Amino acid sequence: MLQKTTRLTLVDQVIIQIEAMIESGVWPLGTKIPPEPDLVHDLNVSRNTLREGIKALCHAGVLVTKQGDGTYVSSSSTLGAAIQRRVQKSGLLDTLEVRNALEQEAAKLSAERRTDEDLAKIRFYQQECQTLYNQHDLERYVDADMKLHQTIVESTGNRMLIDLYEHITEAIQDSITVILKKQVSDNLPLDKHDQLVEAIFAQDPDAAAKQVQQFIKEVRHFIEQEDL
Amino acid sequence: MLQKTTRLTLVDQVIIQIEAMIESGVWPLGTKIPPEPDLVHDLNVSRNTLREGIKALCHAGVLVTKQGDGTYVSSSSTLGAAIQRRVQKSGLLDTLEVRNALEQEAAKLSAERRTDEDLAKIRFYQQECQTLYNQHDLERYVDADMKLHQTIVESTGNRMLIDLYEHITEAIQDSITVILKKQVSDNLPLDKHDQLVEAIFAQDPDAAAKQVQQFIKEVRHFIEQEDL
Repeated sequence: MLQKTTRLTLVDQVIIQIEAMIESGVWPLGTKIPPEPDLVHDLNVSRNTLREGIKALCHAGVLVTKQGDGTYVSSSSTLGAAIQRRVQKSGLLDTLEVRNALEQEAAKLSAERRTDEDLAKIRFYQQECQTLYNQHDLERYVDADMKLHQTIVESTGNRMLIDLYEHITEAIQDSITVILKKQVSDNLPLDKHDQLVEAIFAQDPDAAAKQVQQFIKEVRHFIEQEDL
Repeated sequence: MLQKTTRLTLVDQVIIQIEAMIESGVWPLGTKIPPEPDLVHDLNVSRNTLREGIKALCHAGVLVTKQGDGTYVSSSSTLGAAIQRRVQKSGLLDTLEVRNALEQEAAKLSAERRTDEDLAKIRFYQQECQTLYNQHDLERYVDADMKLHQTIVESTGNRMLIDLYEHITEAIQDSITVILKKQVSDNLPLDKHDQLVEAIFAQDPDAAAKQVQQFIKEVRHFIEQEDL
């Protein structure tokens, strides 16, 4: 069947190309993008077309222009920026509920799909968490904990799940950091990490999801207690 | 503690106000927004400022300008438009996995939080589904089935969960319609609907989540068989 052709305007093509550079990691978060004359040349568009595209990405929260300096990447994607703004309108508990929904599905899918290579990475961060926990190195513990969960989500191979999980996590990173530090300070045992990793190792989706559920109960209890 | 003041540009203020009109449903999907002179007057901005805001919302996929006609609402929010674009890049199975993660969490939370009023609405659509199923009225069955699930998600009261679920559902509505019609044509019994509603009635989160999981297995099996 013939399909309608879609006509993208030049500005939309500029936007899509800049987004692709950001989403593929060529221009990571915080990067100063090339100066206007370079982009005009590389994209083969007029200065006005380029400016309209950059303005649209600024309004979307993906780029930010600093007067007299240049334009910087301020979000890892349009979806990320839209989620960031949505999270600001939602409460922390609502956002955590959504993140947890994604994390439970990820734990199940990881148990079903993880390769040996995935498992090696997961075990590496599990070990890192234990070491840094023993050393009471809060800053680096938080980082290792985030990486452990991210690695589990990545082993699902579901790009949409991975992106949503990362954007939501990014948007509430400060609160997660407070929660994790408090848990380590309180000497909360790491046995749930171990049980989650063992469930993924044993390819037991139900046990993996159950461990995530346990985490979440603790976190919710903590937030309600501390009135975060 | 003093906080940095944030300076929103006039264009950003225009964007936020137009978004609010759309998200609150004053200008629902498909609405032709008021003509330029009216908006210039109501928003008290210059024509250029208004045009830049509208252009940015067009590039974001929220508005669409039809030459010589006017500007129409083409997505229910910026987040919705960003999800729509993300879904186009993902496979149907990946998208369904994310939707199902949200739906399982929603079923659990609904079992915990639903009011009697929510339950009455849920029972209404459950009954509708049964009636239309018995009449083999495919079009209206699909609609009632969507409303049943939407009502369950809405009873969680989690605005972020509701929005994400609705945007993702919107983005794959065509595929869901195919699946639902096929299920009714095949005379697939509706007992899982009934068991889900009973679990929500009985305030049993685990049973509610389990019913959703059962649905999902059937849907995945169906997609793999039909190569959708």
